[in-house]
Amino acid sequence: MNNSYGSLFRISTFGESHGPAIGVVIDGCPAGLEIDEPFIQSELNRRKPGQSKITTQRKEDDTFKILSGVFEGKSTGTPIAIVIENQDQRSKDYGHIAETYRPSHADYTYDAKYGHRDFRGGGRSSARETAARVAAGAIAKLMLLKEGVTINAFVSQVGELKAPYYTQLDLSKTEDNIVRCPDPATAEKMIALIDQVRLERDTIGGLVTCVIKNTPVGLGEPVFDKLHAELGKAMLSINAVKGFEYGSGFEGTQLRGSQHNDEFYNEGGRTRTKTNHSGGVQGGISNGEDIYFNVAFKPVATIMQDQQSVDTSGNAVTVSGKGRHDPCVLPRAVPIVEAMAALVIVDFLLRARLSKI
Amino acid sequence: MNNSYGSLFRISTFGESHGPAIGVVIDGCPAGLEIDEPFIQSELNRRKPGQSKITTQRKEDDTFKILSGVFEGKSTGTPIAIVIENQDQRSKDYGHIAETYRPSHADYTYDAKYGHRDFRGGGRSSARETAARVAAGAIAKLMLLKEGVTINAFVSQVGELKAPYYTQLDLSKTEDNIVRCPDPATAEKMIALIDQVRLERDTIGGLVTCVIKNTPVGLGEPVFDKLHAELGKAMLSINAVKGFEYGSGFEGTQLRGSQHNDEFYNEGGRTRTKTNHSGGVQGGISNGEDIYFNVAFKPVATIMQDQQSVDTSGNAVTVSGKGRHDPCVLPRAVPIVEAMAALVIVDFLLRARLSKI
Amino acid sequence: MNNSYGSLFRISTFGESHGPAIGVVIDGCPAGLEIDEPFIQSELNRRKPGQSKITTQRKEDDTFKILSGVFEGKSTGTPIAIVIENQDQRSKDYGHIAETYRPSHADYTYDAKYGHRDFRGGGRSSARETAARVAAGAIAKLMLLKEGVTINAFVSQVGELKAPYYTQLDLSKTEDNIVRCPDPATAEKMIALIDQVRLERDTIGGLVTCVIKNTPVGLGEPVFDKLHAELGKAMLSINAVKGFEYGSGFEGTQLRGSQHNDEFYNEGGRTRTKTNHSGGVQGGISNGEDIYFNVAFKPVATIMQDQQSVDTSGNAVTVSGKGRHDPCVLPRAVPIVEAMAALVIVDFLLRARLSKI
Amino acid sequence: MNNSYGSLFRISTFGESHGPAIGVVIDGCPAGLEIDEPFIQSELNRRKPGQSKITTQRKEDDTFKILSGVFEGKSTGTPIAIVIENQDQRSKDYGHIAETYRPSHADYTYDAKYGHRDFRGGGRSSARETAARVAAGAIAKLMLLKEGVTINAFVSQVGELKAPYYTQLDLSKTEDNIVRCPDPATAEKMIALIDQVRLERDTIGGLVTCVIKNTPVGLGEPVFDKLHAELGKAMLSINAVKGFEYGSGFEGTQLRGSQHNDEFYNEGGRTRTKTNHSGGVQGGISNGEDIYFNVAFKPVATIMQDQQSVDTSGNAVTVSGKGRHDPCVLPRAVPIVEAMAALVIVDFLLRARLSKI
Repeated sequence: MNNSYGSLFRISTFGESHGPAIGVVIDGCPAGLEIDEPFIQSELNRRKPGQSKITTQRKEDDTFKILSGVFEGKSTGTPIAIVIENQDQRSKDYGHIAETYRPSHADYTYDAKYGHRDFRGGGRSSARETAARVAAGAIAKLMLLKEGVTINAFVSQVGELKAPYYTQLDLSKTEDNIVRCPDPATAEKMIALIDQVRLERDTIGGLVTCVIKNTPVGLGEPVFDKLHAELGKAMLSINAVKGFEYGSGFEGTQLRGSQHNDEFYNEGGRTRTKTNHSGGVQGGISNGEDIYFNVAFKPVATIMQDQQSVDTSGNAVTVSGKGRHDPCVLPRAVPIVEAMAALVIVDFLLRARLSKI
Repeated sequence: MNNSYGSLFRISTFGESHGPAIGVVIDGCPAGLEIDEPFIQSELNRRKPGQSKITTQRKEDDTFKILSGVFEGKSTGTPIAIVIENQDQRSKDYGHIAETYRPSHADYTYDAKYGHRDFRGGGRSSARETAARVAAGAIAKLMLLKEGVTINAFVSQVGELKAPYYTQLDLSKTEDNIVRCPDPATAEKMIALIDQVRLERDTIGGLVTCVIKNTPVGLGEPVFDKLHAELGKAMLSINAVKGFEYGSGFEGTQLRGSQHNDEFYNEGGRTRTKTNHSGGVQGGISNGEDIYFNVAFKPVATIMQDQQSVDTSGNAVTVSGKGRHDPCVLPRAVPIVEAMAALVIVDFLLRARLSKI
Repeated sequence: MNNSYGSLFRISTFGESHGPAIGVVIDGCPAGLEIDEPFIQSELNRRKPGQSKITTQRKEDDTFKILSGVFEGKSTGTPIAIVIENQDQRSKDYGHIAETYRPSHADYTYDAKYGHRDFRGGGRSSARETAARVAAGAIAKLMLLKEGVTINAFVSQVGELKAPYYTQLDLSKTEDNIVRCPDPATAEKMIALIDQVRLERDTIGGLVTCVIKNTPVGLGEPVFDKLHAELGKAMLSINAVKGFEYGSGFEGTQLRGSQHNDEFYNEGGRTRTKTNHSGGVQGGISNGEDIYFNVAFKPVATIMQDQQSVDTSGNAVTVSGKGRHDPCVLPRAVPIVEAMAALVIVDFLLRARLSKI
Repeated sequence: MNNSYGSLFRISTFGESHGPAIGVVIDGCPAGLEIDEPFIQSELNRRKPGQSKITTQRKEDDTFKILSGVFEGKSTGTPIAIVIENQDQRSKDYGHIAETYRPSHADYTYDAKYGHRDFRGGGRSSARETAARVAAGAIAKLMLLKEGVTINAFVSQVGELKAPYYTQLDLSKTEDNIVRCPDPATAEKMIALIDQVRLERDTIGGLVTCVIKNTPVGLGEPVFDKLHAELGKAMLSINAVKGFEYGSGFEGTQLRGSQHNDEFYNEGGRTRTKTNHSGGVQGGISNGEDIYFNVAFKPVATIMQDQQSVDTSGNAVTVSGKGRHDPCVLPRAVPIVEAMAALVIVDFLLRARLSKI
């Protein structure tokens, strides 16, 4: 169960970065959904390495193959297995970490937990695993499309550079630039900053904001599986994420209740709220307003500099950065955030079918 | 499954605020654990209403009764059912919400989801449900005690008033004041602020910080069930929580990778990190350093003021605040945060028994 | 999870035979179901001890109380907790088993598994636990009633005495006699046989047959959670059950494929089968024909005779039968079989809501 | 979840008989297990078609490939994905079933459930799916080998031909003949009978018996997940299975309690039973004696004869048998029964790690 996510639309991912392949099995996709394969590929392309100068120059085509669950272009209700072969298996790039613990990576904790690990390129802990999530998320998005739900994530902050609040942005412009920030002026500065950090052989973090529109009222479960709690878990399960907030978030703690409460009004027979500090979720359940949240990504741990560490025997060693890595994970994180959000929403859409007799 | 939490040490809560009782069934508590009933009661007392002038004046004894799973003072490995009877069932206090949607409460979303709800006192959406969590969490704490793990939460911020960073505090002093902030000077100001807000018939939010010490290395699962992802979900499932961050959190996004990485060193044969921006978790798995995280609570939605809203037929109405409510949920949230953290850690302790042959 | 059953309509039972109470929490009952409390009680009465001369003379009222999840007579979609207090707690009746392993009971295996057990009256291994299942099953039956599905179990064999095949019986007559066999002539002989066995201070086994009518086409999942596989597990989880067969069952192995296959025909636009060796299930999924199956119960282990055994230290001891026990478990097993069948069918009814987009 | 089995050692299978591949993902295999690939292949060879004159003459190599979870010959604790490509994709053999419902197959029920199905060769309902179970079961067997647990299944009955009781057989001889019955005289008769049935273009059923030795005491969970209940479900989930009984089974219903009870005695410090009507399981938990059970297989539905049926529009049609099919599924079912039994036992071995503090 450790490698599965979702209760009714359940994905199980597998694969190490330098094994033969990674992949995902989706169990619970209802029958009859048209599976648009070019769309799945386009989502994978948004995540793949080597797509611009501010991402890693490593090359992976990330071409997927569907092994089951789709017949004559439509889902059959049986498990959809998707495999993505690993191409760029230059193990020698990673040989130095077999006996060395890279700072702020998972090398040490995996060794402690399992005793035996695939150390090549981070193995299972590599962010390469997220390609499988994006493929599955693309299918989730196809289901959401039928319901009219849209999910748009974008880079809202890199270092200190912040984009305007989401309601002031045209989210259709996110893909217009390589940093995936829909505000052109901020995007330009972000790109320059990331490029500079790259030249300094360093890395930088920031925020991804995600906005979900047109969600039906009633998604989410009241106690433990609150809609925002599942969104939080889904986001925190992405590599390098350190924080999650939705609606008014951390800043909301500074308001008084009288300022923070979202008063209701009637708009053409529909119950709406005047403000949306709730972020579209009340009591763990969607109220039909925009769901929006922020995801905090740390600066990625792999830097092109020397760092002090220990080896598996406890001896002090110097770890030297090499290989091809992302100076900033945020542009490639955008489709991952969207994929995980889509998986959460689809799961709750199915669960909502069960709430009444 | 909606009302259950945990995979191996699994709790299932039940009950509405104004029904006969609330309770919890714990399935998966290993046999042989000494069940210290006075300790369970003391944890419930930390959460119960009416304990100080800055909490609600509502009175509930929150006396629990164990119905099963304990024999001769020790757990038997069978389900432990705990029931807490509801005493303060003054339904008339809540009659006004039968047909009215209180702003930023769950009234509207429950109605939309279920069509039929127990509206008395919030019913299932009432924070009263968390008493069941605290009872179960107390048993989880008894298991952790045997492993030497300690969990300490405290109020680290109310409105703009912030306590010093946790390493500068003596966490044993948290219970010394009614706001549960271990820094006496800040505590005094916090209490005054909450009292003032109460007089203004308003509410205020803030942060609870939680610190977990002496966790074994190797807790957490690598992909979806990362240790911090589960902690995040657990915290976000608590009423009024809007955000979660661990380790360097949102501020960590401002650092460069070269500043943020935690270099390893060897301390007496043990692999340790010089800094702890990772918050004790690397790749989703505990590394033995302190686990610490912040939980953001919004100002509670029930205020003693008039607010605009709609009724179940969509008509505009005025909702008037009445009853006895918390001006600030944070002091009573401390034991809830600890309980949920204990449940997460115990669950991963059991899961860790499965990682190697 | 060990004490839970069902995936979407999930029950979790708790309680030992001689603790304060037993009970069940139902999570996943859709909102809006009318909860007919007298019906629940009537189902419990069919299972309770002391109801006739051929059952144990032990007295338990088995009065239940609903603690949550029901408001104004209807389910709210939140967990329904039901508690049944234990009345007949004469622990001295059972004191002799604290250090002795009763033959073919669970005393020895519980001790080996848990190290610490509630030995009073079998504790958790007592068939008393099934009262909780019957209460939950009654609610499942209320849901099935709305769908037109009927479930009828009856005693079809005691020792060598067999009732006619189910299609030759009037199943509405099952409750007309104390052995719950709808064939009056066979019932009379069965009662005489059980009474004779009782006088011999011995016990006797037999079969319960269960027939489910009007199931919608499409219930069951194709691979592991086949409809008959779940029915099998549910039945085998009942105390004293040793075997399960559905449709043609064990006898079907004697037929050739050409004899066994159920040919299809069209009846008024509905696809039907001429014969029903399939027992209403094909490829794990219901086809709309009658679902029928047999459940084999061993003679109950508690006999009023001396038996050889060992104590917890491995010394040879003689176990003497005493107390008040059932000479034949079958009449009281009928409502339990029905309850478990109802739980299985309701769960699959909910799962069927998920099969198509 | 529909296509997953097991709680801690969990397998998820995927694939249709005529898609690109079938496969399985194992989540929960502890790290450090040596993965003997030739052994996995030898298990697949026992199940594969075309292995003798009494099985289908269809050819599939059933060569597997491990995509993840194994490094340097040992499991890493991450998901083990195994893929088996489909070779024999002669779709034309199966074209006739696109619009026709074959008697006692899953064609009709799949159509009713999903609306859209892969009809080629039975698609997901094909017994080809069991190859994935055998591959996963082989890994489970590798874990059991380390614990000394052995699992031996064999064909104990074909039509009316019965092998002697298992204790009178040398189970090491099962693989000595093509019908997999360890009694040479019975085996010879069985082979002749199957061959005759094949010439009659018909099919025949029978029993597989399975014996598990050296199981530790304490496996199984007391209430719903009783050891024998899980074994029952696992067996009933195999295609063509109609019944399950363990220990004394259906015949045990004919004994009196005084005959059926297994008295305890002490053998060299170990608590044992003189008889074993319990089949090694008491109260749902293993007692260390042999676990044995029977699995009833119907005659397979595909026969080389004309049968009456309907098409998808309800018109009467004649279905003509063609293609290459098994006249008797039992010889190839033996490794499948063993695989499912191994998966059940390994899962409970892991669960047993959780029973005590």
